[in-house]
Amino acid sequence: MIMKAKIAVLEGFKKPLVIKHFDIPPLPQGSILVKMVASGICGSDLHMVDGEDPRVPLPIILGHEGVGEIVEINGEKKDLNGDTLKKGDLIIWDRGVVCGECYFCKVLKTPYLCENRKIYGINRSFKDYPYLTGAYAEYIILEKKTEILKLSSKTDPTVLVMAGCSGATAVHAIDSLEDNLLDKTVVVQGGGPLGIFALALSKFQGAKNTILITGSSFRKEIAEKIGVDVVLDRTILKEEERINKILDMTYGKGADVVIEATGTNKAIPEGLRILRKGGTYIVVGVASPQEKVPVDFYDVSSKNITIKGVWVSDAEHFKKAVSFLEKNQDLFAPVVTHKISLDEINHGLDLVRERKAGKVVIEKF
Amino acid sequence: MIMKAKIAVLEGFKKPLVIKHFDIPPLPQGSILVKMVASGICGSDLHMVDGEDPRVPLPIILGHEGVGEIVEINGEKKDLNGDTLKKGDLIIWDRGVVCGECYFCKVLKTPYLCENRKIYGINRSFKDYPYLTGAYAEYIILEKKTEILKLSSKTDPTVLVMAGCSGATAVHAIDSLEDNLLDKTVVVQGGGPLGIFALALSKFQGAKNTILITGSSFRKEIAEKIGVDVVLDRTILKEEERINKILDMTYGKGADVVIEATGTNKAIPEGLRILRKGGTYIVVGVASPQEKVPVDFYDVSSKNITIKGVWVSDAEHFKKAVSFLEKNQDLFAPVVTHKISLDEINHGLDLVRERKAGKVVIEKF
Amino acid sequence: MIMKAKIAVLEGFKKPLVIKHFDIPPLPQGSILVKMVASGICGSDLHMVDGEDPRVPLPIILGHEGVGEIVEINGEKKDLNGDTLKKGDLIIWDRGVVCGECYFCKVLKTPYLCENRKIYGINRSFKDYPYLTGAYAEYIILEKKTEILKLSSKTDPTVLVMAGCSGATAVHAIDSLEDNLLDKTVVVQGGGPLGIFALALSKFQGAKNTILITGSSFRKEIAEKIGVDVVLDRTILKEEERINKILDMTYGKGADVVIEATGTNKAIPEGLRILRKGGTYIVVGVASPQEKVPVDFYDVSSKNITIKGVWVSDAEHFKKAVSFLEKNQDLFAPVVTHKISLDEINHGLDLVRERKAGKVVIEKF
Amino acid sequence: MIMKAKIAVLEGFKKPLVIKHFDIPPLPQGSILVKMVASGICGSDLHMVDGEDPRVPLPIILGHEGVGEIVEINGEKKDLNGDTLKKGDLIIWDRGVVCGECYFCKVLKTPYLCENRKIYGINRSFKDYPYLTGAYAEYIILEKKTEILKLSSKTDPTVLVMAGCSGATAVHAIDSLEDNLLDKTVVVQGGGPLGIFALALSKFQGAKNTILITGSSFRKEIAEKIGVDVVLDRTILKEEERINKILDMTYGKGADVVIEATGTNKAIPEGLRILRKGGTYIVVGVASPQEKVPVDFYDVSSKNITIKGVWVSDAEHFKKAVSFLEKNQDLFAPVVTHKISLDEINHGLDLVRERKAGKVVIEKF
Ligand SMILES: [Zn+2]
Ligand SMILES: [Zn+2]
Ligand SMILES: [Zn+2]
Ligand SMILES: [Zn+2]
Ligand SMILES: [Zn+2]
Ligand SMILES: [Zn+2]
Ligand SMILES: [Zn+2]
Ligand SMILES: [Zn+2]
Repeated sequence: MIMKAKIAVLEGFKKPLVIKHFDIPPLPQGSILVKMVASGICGSDLHMVDGEDPRVPLPIILGHEGVGEIVEINGEKKDLNGDTLKKGDLIIWDRGVVCGECYFCKVLKTPYLCENRKIYGINRSFKDYPYLTGAYAEYIILEKKTEILKLSSKTDPTVLVMAGCSGATAVHAIDSLEDNLLDKTVVVQGGGPLGIFALALSKFQGAKNTILITGSSFRKEIAEKIGVDVVLDRTILKEEERINKILDMTYGKGADVVIEATGTNKAIPEGLRILRKGGTYIVVGVASPQEKVPVDFYDVSSKNITIKGVWVSDAEHFKKAVSFLEKNQDLFAPVVTHKISLDEINHGLDLVRERKAGKVVIEKF
Repeated sequence: MIMKAKIAVLEGFKKPLVIKHFDIPPLPQGSILVKMVASGICGSDLHMVDGEDPRVPLPIILGHEGVGEIVEINGEKKDLNGDTLKKGDLIIWDRGVVCGECYFCKVLKTPYLCENRKIYGINRSFKDYPYLTGAYAEYIILEKKTEILKLSSKTDPTVLVMAGCSGATAVHAIDSLEDNLLDKTVVVQGGGPLGIFALALSKFQGAKNTILITGSSFRKEIAEKIGVDVVLDRTILKEEERINKILDMTYGKGADVVIEATGTNKAIPEGLRILRKGGTYIVVGVASPQEKVPVDFYDVSSKNITIKGVWVSDAEHFKKAVSFLEKNQDLFAPVVTHKISLDEINHGLDLVRERKAGKVVIEKF
Repeated sequence: MIMKAKIAVLEGFKKPLVIKHFDIPPLPQGSILVKMVASGICGSDLHMVDGEDPRVPLPIILGHEGVGEIVEINGEKKDLNGDTLKKGDLIIWDRGVVCGECYFCKVLKTPYLCENRKIYGINRSFKDYPYLTGAYAEYIILEKKTEILKLSSKTDPTVLVMAGCSGATAVHAIDSLEDNLLDKTVVVQGGGPLGIFALALSKFQGAKNTILITGSSFRKEIAEKIGVDVVLDRTILKEEERINKILDMTYGKGADVVIEATGTNKAIPEGLRILRKGGTYIVVGVASPQEKVPVDFYDVSSKNITIKGVWVSDAEHFKKAVSFLEKNQDLFAPVVTHKISLDEINHGLDLVRERKAGKVVIEKF
Repeated sequence: MIMKAKIAVLEGFKKPLVIKHFDIPPLPQGSILVKMVASGICGSDLHMVDGEDPRVPLPIILGHEGVGEIVEINGEKKDLNGDTLKKGDLIIWDRGVVCGECYFCKVLKTPYLCENRKIYGINRSFKDYPYLTGAYAEYIILEKKTEILKLSSKTDPTVLVMAGCSGATAVHAIDSLEDNLLDKTVVVQGGGPLGIFALALSKFQGAKNTILITGSSFRKEIAEKIGVDVVLDRTILKEEERINKILDMTYGKGADVVIEATGTNKAIPEGLRILRKGGTYIVVGVASPQEKVPVDFYDVSSKNITIKGVWVSDAEHFKKAVSFLEKNQDLFAPVVTHKISLDEINHGLDLVRERKAGKVVIEKF
């Protein structure tokens, strides 16, 4: 008997996703059929729906963050810890599948830059076998090379989904710092899941001051639950006032690390101003083409500033993010503000679009 | 009128310290007179009393961990944050005073290896002007080059004293790791203040598993209050059992990082066995000459192991330790198990000798 | 018509290799048939012939360093630069083939520690299909996952073979240092190909002093041709004299870096004595089980010494070694002291055993 | 009898320096009187003469690169190797004198960012005792905290002067890279002394390809003598052609490292375009305020680019530069194209201004 999967398909840009029922195809050699348990909506999904992300083909099943249960494995497969996977296991996977053979994978050991990186729910069309390659669906088919982690039975899947995208990317940002954060002041611009994760990680790298700059009182509240030291509200404080607050906390020096997690280049000039001499600016949120930002390179040079772009993540970051989230589930629980069903996917996307949500997670398929 | 300082002097090795009253001398240019508020007893003080530490001259005022209040400054002095110090400030200082000019200070930027390092309460004789150079005393005189930090008024000095020695040294150990500790398993051998601090820091570097190996039920209890994940009791579990426990927690791989904080080289063979391929062994506790330990260098080579000796600390480590302790005072409060008066110093040393104490702190002078 | 390959087979430990002619089997999918052009004899081959290396099965075609010409590719294959390989290309390959999926490959990005590493000419039996998996042969079959680099037509294959083993391992040693070598003093113990390569690399990391300790006047001569600054001859200078020479060159401080490349643990005590405070000792030569060496851990700790075991190499090290050798062919030419035919393989092994050779390379098959 | 020093003084911006004879004042405690042997003219001196560098007070003796002979020491002083200095020693010194006490010196160990950095010939007025604080003079007075290195008698002072400014700064640039340069492609924009030094260092970090982009045939020639692999002439090749050349040499990937050493922000857009994914752009030449450069941060982010500003240098960089130059004097000799007398200083400045010189050095006073 052929099994059916309920799916949500994007058939045209700027159009609502369409719910369908689709015959699950035969599993390719080495692949795994997974029944979704939780699927996260990512801010970047909006750019994809709107046709602003050049990687996205049509039609497509979006959704690149997921936790699910193994239904069937066509062959044998181990997770990143070397554990053999089996039917019934609760798992999470890395959204990106890398080739393991190109210059970036093999020689530079930066697989996040892999020239052949395939991404579930982002650059894989619904037209291409095995079709079920997005997480906005009742079932997903994971190919052989997918990086997988088995989850403990105590895991809350709705919290864990974050690890697969914003969590792993935030780890990549933190990993790219040369020093640990003991006694350091970290400012994060933007309080979405990426920013919140970066703040939590900074705290668990020993940061002295964790500071969020946000314009959303909703996100301010989440940040405070997470234990962020200071939230600077853009709707209350002007740029000069925000900068002065940070100078006051740092003996007039400025922040050691600033992390841009807003998704917009508008935050960059302030980010550079906040930084102390010798500080590092991580630009991790700018995930779609935008206009150029004028930069004073005498400032960059004479302040000995480092600016680091950070792009997506790899198996190391993913594994660290999952480990960190599993250990700190309670901490992150307040980030998940909405749990919906797959049928409500378009409503879920709207919630994210209006920035009135922390994390929106599909938990019913 | 000449002020008097109550002091405890070591006049002969293996003899009790003698309480005296001593005229405070005129302050050298640039020096600071400090009234002690808290003074910590360090495990290494026992080696000094017993004459096992070759650095110690006689007679000497021991005590190298202190917090105090500024009574007088002969000149002007800033703390490490650039804050100008003034009478009445509560301060903590680095036990080591470095030259700032030698190859290790200037070129290698490893002032902990300074060829001219002077240490309060360790290598400065009571015979040498300005005499009051140990923390087991009512007053101490800090010379111009001393690295100082002003403390917040909310600080508990009895908790903070740890930052000056075991805290700073533990930071040095953690700083010497090349990667952060996200998803990593850290095993600490030895649950004295140094070990406890290393465990707390590991947690705040994101470690997945923090594991203490100790033979003291007293220290086990402190470790659990600090939030250590697992304590392996040497009086209950044999070496093979301890190793198996660690292998079980690490998918058969072994610990990523092992930190020797026992003070004895007897722990080293087990430490090396616990380590996974590619792991790092930090040897930070061996602070006095001991007999050699046979090492299998084929094991070191074929497992690609790193062994790092870590010696004392510098201004960077000290500042990070103070910052970390100030931020986490409640966490560390249970480590201080005994608060005594200067008159009880010999009793305090006995408590440490019998390993029946966490941290013993003098708080009455 | 079935092609024949001339091969040299080790059928029993401590026995001479036997020359045979063997039918080339059908190529597995993705594999490459290569006609050998140059094949290097490695010091470690002697341990294998003698049965001292536990990795070696019988019977086996030894030889793990090779350069050859592509005869046939069963499928498509790119080299590490992304260049598509084709018939007639002159290539070099990494002796190790890693799984790309285990914890060490994927998460730690240390594929040299891969749990499933297969090595041409070392742990692959002649009994197992496709049989031709050692470089002491007219033809070798490289499996799909082999890491390959296309060589320029100007390459001298007899010089390049070194890159595949001692070259790549020496790069691994140098890469594992945290700082570059500008103004540093590097002492290498042992003047075989590994040591010579480490010295040449040290020079090209900017080392101020490169020093070789050797007991072989033959190797001394090679070192001088390579441009090593100082050779300390063990047959002329006693250990104390050698150490004093090094102290004299370093303002009494000792060497910044010492690299053990002798293959015997006997060199280790001197290596540790030579090191300055804060220095690094790379143990890379100890490639077979030997007896333990007593180590003074108070010395390790109080001198803040780092000891790093370095094991084999990976694609990054391999690629760097090939690049370095291609750029500096003339520099390395004097290292190749003997060029022989496959028929003379047992004589070649003897030359290496008697330490009367630099590099012995098979160039006629 | 009072000794006189011939000096060249800048009394007004955009005016010629004026030659004078000045009474040498009594030496401050700890200071050293040095008779100049060689004094280098730096490109940045032109900005100072023109009043474009906000650090410069009037009147001033310019000149921040020097080698000289000790005439008198008022006290005792050691060099960075711990050697005691004495009359008659040939020495070189770091242009910057740092406080050794501020947050940047002590805690961050980045003394190049010292908040109290004084610079010979740049921010010290001729009006302030001890007046002789610039290298365009027959004598200079070095204060106690100056970082000094004794030079070998075989040194050519006219070559060594470079070490004190462009050499040390180039070392800082190279030191700020996280990896060594084996197999890497390094592009340097600008062929003045800073660029030439960066190229030579890159070669001695093992770079596979060293590439200079310049518009000066004069500098092209110097670069070729230094052993640069490729020079791309801006007067012959258009930007697209230059980029294509670099892509051709890097399998279409772009340069691993680009170093901006032109002194003008106009080079920055091309620099960013040349870089491969994951590459690093060092901005070290922009030493005076200039207009902003528009930067595409989606490019920075999605290519995972690092941009590092590098400002001046410290004792570590200085010592490495001196060591490197002493070891490679012959290599650098062609960089010194003009040797003049102090009386010809204004002519020397003109030579640099017209970019018709490599290094102009005063060797007669
Ligand atoms: Zn996402
Ligand atoms: Zn790839
Ligand atoms: Zn202590
Ligand atoms: Zn020093
Ligand atoms: Zn070999
Ligand atoms: Zn593997
Ligand atoms: Zn200059
Ligand atoms: Zn300073």
